[in-house]
Amino acid sequence: MRRDVRILLLGEAQVGKTSLILSLVGEEFPEEVPARAEEITIPAAVTPERVPTHIVDYSEAEQTDEELWDEIRKANVVCVVYDVSKETTIEKLQWLPVSGNHGLLPRLPIILVGNKADLRSGSTMEAVLPIMSQFPEIETCVECSAKHLKNISELFYYAQKAVLHPTAPLYDPETKQVAPPPRPALASPQHL
Amino acid sequence: MRRDVRILLLGEAQVGKTSLILSLVGEEFPEEVPARAEEITIPAAVTPERVPTHIVDYSEAEQTDEELWDEIRKANVVCVVYDVSKETTIEKLQWLPVSGNHGLLPRLPIILVGNKADLRSGSTMEAVLPIMSQFPEIETCVECSAKHLKNISELFYYAQKAVLHPTAPLYDPETKQVAPPPRPALASPQHL
Repeated sequence: MRRDVRILLLGEAQVGKTSLILSLVGEEFPEEVPARAEEITIPAAVTPERVPTHIVDYSEAEQTDEELWDEIRKANVVCVVYDVSKETTIEKLQWLPVSGNHGLLPRLPIILVGNKADLRSGSTMEAVLPIMSQFPEIETCVECSAKHLKNISELFYYAQKAVLHPTAPLYDPETKQVAPPPRPALASPQHL
Repeated sequence: MRRDVRILLLGEAQVGKTSLILSLVGEEFPEEVPARAEEITIPAAVTPERVPTHIVDYSEAEQTDEELWDEIRKANVVCVVYDVSKETTIEKLQWLPVSGNHGLLPRLPIILVGNKADLRSGSTMEAVLPIMSQFPEIETCVECSAKHLKNISELFYYAQKAVLHPTAPLYDPETKQVAPPPRPALASPQHL
């Protein structure tokens, strides 16, 4: 098993990165939110995948670019957060450091996280899908609400899972087909 | 690419299987819900993974056991639906036909779907995780609300993805470790 999982939250200011972290930890929506949350370590026993998990916040105002790249290098998975009630934060997703993935940095799995789902009826999935087909490193997407504590545990579960059990599109270049799903014979329950 | 994906919804009566399907199709919560929805085929162009997708409902009252097993045999993925506001529907998850997976039937990926999230604050994840470690075929879990149209597109996206890009825990029996995530070099965007 991996020794730990390091989850980094990125995204524009005010999308709710810090609130998501504090909601997970405090199990309630924080009234007062600092510019950046301290790094949090969740012990193996209380994480879905039973692996110690570090959750790292990012604040453009508080951190230099160098610190940011350093965090990206250390991360195992990046949650890119946007605000489902603000179209501009969705459009700007393509400009996020995610694109560093295509350069010198190691390729990291990414989870697209639409926060503030309480402020919007309906889903942003239609807007998000074209971005997902552009960036194959996006493992999955999820909408959540730090305010209503909706999908918060799920979000961090999906992030852990992206590191421990990445999806493997079994593409056969010969037949140009995706192979039928081989159910993992070696998977033991504790790895689920 | 696969030619199509067949999604079967299972779960106890009144958990909202039919409402989930009708909410997806109609983009609004249906006031009147039949005992069972007709089989629905979604054309490739409007599905997240660009693959024709059949969605099949189940009703214990309307169908024989034989018809049920026949549908399980034809399905590529099963969504097992429970009601997040009713503990008994979670406890009973382990008795669902899912367990047929361990017998003569082909092993199918399963998505655990907690419906009626609008009726409960907080998540059922804590109750669901032990079930997930018991059944390695459970690919992921999601909470949604047919009534508030929350996480409906996502649910069907996760189901498609479980068929087209199953997770592969790359367990190395030599080192007894899960290998580091190999990002799929051959994945082209249209397969995401």
